[in-house]
Amino acid sequence: MNVKRFEENPLITPEDVKPFHDNHEVIGVFNAGVAEYDGETLLLLRVAERPISEDPKRVKAPVIEFTNGEGKLRLVELHIEDSQYDFSDPRSVLYSSDNRAAYLTSLSYIRIARSKNGRQFTIDDEPFIYPETEREAWGVEDPRVTQIQDTYYIQYSAVSPEGIGVGLISTKDFSTYERHGLMLHPENKDVSIFPEKINGKYYTLHRPVPKGIGQPEIWLAESDNLLYWGNHQYLLGLSQDGWDNGRIGGGAIPFRTDKGWLEIYHAADKNNRYCLGAVLLDSDNPAKVLAKTEEPILSPEAKYEVDGFFGNVVFTCGVTVQGDNVRIYYGASDTSMAAADLSLKEILSNLTYV
Amino acid sequence: MNVKRFEENPLITPEDVKPFHDNHEVIGVFNAGVAEYDGETLLLLRVAERPISEDPKRVKAPVIEFTNGEGKLRLVELHIEDSQYDFSDPRSVLYSSDNRAAYLTSLSYIRIARSKNGRQFTIDDEPFIYPETEREAWGVEDPRVTQIQDTYYIQYSAVSPEGIGVGLISTKDFSTYERHGLMLHPENKDVSIFPEKINGKYYTLHRPVPKGIGQPEIWLAESDNLLYWGNHQYLLGLSQDGWDNGRIGGGAIPFRTDKGWLEIYHAADKNNRYCLGAVLLDSDNPAKVLAKTEEPILSPEAKYEVDGFFGNVVFTCGVTVQGDNVRIYYGASDTSMAAADLSLKEILSNLTYV
Repeated sequence: MNVKRFEENPLITPEDVKPFHDNHEVIGVFNAGVAEYDGETLLLLRVAERPISEDPKRVKAPVIEFTNGEGKLRLVELHIEDSQYDFSDPRSVLYSSDNRAAYLTSLSYIRIARSKNGRQFTIDDEPFIYPETEREAWGVEDPRVTQIQDTYYIQYSAVSPEGIGVGLISTKDFSTYERHGLMLHPENKDVSIFPEKINGKYYTLHRPVPKGIGQPEIWLAESDNLLYWGNHQYLLGLSQDGWDNGRIGGGAIPFRTDKGWLEIYHAADKNNRYCLGAVLLDSDNPAKVLAKTEEPILSPEAKYEVDGFFGNVVFTCGVTVQGDNVRIYYGASDTSMAAADLSLKEILSNLTYV
Repeated sequence: MNVKRFEENPLITPEDVKPFHDNHEVIGVFNAGVAEYDGETLLLLRVAERPISEDPKRVKAPVIEFTNGEGKLRLVELHIEDSQYDFSDPRSVLYSSDNRAAYLTSLSYIRIARSKNGRQFTIDDEPFIYPETEREAWGVEDPRVTQIQDTYYIQYSAVSPEGIGVGLISTKDFSTYERHGLMLHPENKDVSIFPEKINGKYYTLHRPVPKGIGQPEIWLAESDNLLYWGNHQYLLGLSQDGWDNGRIGGGAIPFRTDKGWLEIYHAADKNNRYCLGAVLLDSDNPAKVLAKTEEPILSPEAKYEVDGFFGNVVFTCGVTVQGDNVRIYYGASDTSMAAADLSLKEILSNLTYV
């Protein structure tokens, strides 16, 4: 596969983003949703900010606390020698007793970067979507953007101590927006709503994370109104071995080709190395998998994809498609944003039909 | 709390049920949904059948395999000395490597018991709902029945290697039925749809089981058509200590009282001792918890509640209400069905308002 990484990569790094919170550092600007709006390419960046701790033995965990609906950032101080907690994962603090997450180490929100040419971006000064409900007390993450006529639907991870659900917000101007609550219950992530009705129904990809039985794999759901979802169907599973034997999930918004719906998704192996693959779904029935790539179409190879806050990760939440060019915007190592151009024809010719 | 257990308890035991499969034994008849239909009380029994193994060193795990949509029971033979598996839980065989379920040790399906007086039941010879899709390859479990006009909606656990989702079936005659797919994705259980619209929306209780963040707690969702669900809201959580610090979930279908919607639910502590409690929700807004019982209203005390396939469990999927009498039908120790009468007034007077 010919992957034309941008010479400018990484396009946006934490150094490019001014922290929104006092006494915080931006540790990641990644996993951006992509929209084309008013002649510009917009990246809906996930910005992760970490409280600065003067004492290396103390971790400050950010939590938004709500009183009468009003949110306020509180920093919970933890001592790294407190045996109640496990500090080995840089992303979260776990309870030692049962490995559940007690806190996250950073707070994520969504901020917009705008570009005329899709390569040089200007980042808004203020957050676009910031935690506003108790179900977002630990942050909002990994947005995808689906355009349906002149409305853009933003699907994102709403994270709180009660779980990771899927929030839905709509906007027409990327300035104001309307909230539609949680479209899917915990634990779920990696939601990509198809950009049009298919035989009278809306469809979405989603990725439940079950506890007792099952694996993190890709499912499909249908809807009449984008808010309420049902008829959940299992779509695409893990392999036994290889690059996709740990977890898989939807990535970009699926787009129509003359062969069917093409979805660029992510998969990780058991060592948490995240790659991108492609799967082709039937034009008239997206519950039918026609073909998929046996090997990744994009793997972490460049330095910024291998090294970072959480290394060996390429993870997409959106692409733009022009003729034969598929431009994949992707998060690299949970740290930065990057992009690469691939040929649609070449992706399609690399598919193995099932 | 005055709990009038039936003198006939347990009402139905495994010995009362003829196995549907050759060379199987019924190990449980429990967690029945309840319906009032045509002058009778119906129990939609969960019947669990286990393949008989002649060799105590071999476990036979039942799986329905589907070829061209046609299901066929297959028994997978496992040797108890195979270190790949962990056989310590009587209900399932786990992979030793990661504690995921590899197989269940029994197959559950739904069978109807019918009674004129609510005390003596006659059990149908054939299953009513039997696994018919790949999402039910490991069985169908724990039905609840919601009557809306002359249609009965049956919500049940659809269990397969891909997870535990929530299936929805409707019937008007408890003989034929219509399938509506999965209304909620894995991992979810303990769904109780309210029996009428509230301010123009249907509502349901549900109990996700998240993996990474969160606990098995009670959520609420809304719908226009009973098939598609959204606007998921967190409703009722665990306590730090006590009888409800392990997991909680909806039980019976909620019913209207003059104080609000009353829900009889189950909770287990960290030792897997399951009790029943009551929670009162606002008449006009079921997302609002008004009050709950601090102590259980029914705890495992009788011998059949303490001893059994999985002991120390009382678990309800349905009640009947007549005047002040709340008749709770409940599964005892994952083995048998039992019932008890409680006073509605007494339950309401035991509530603590929040």
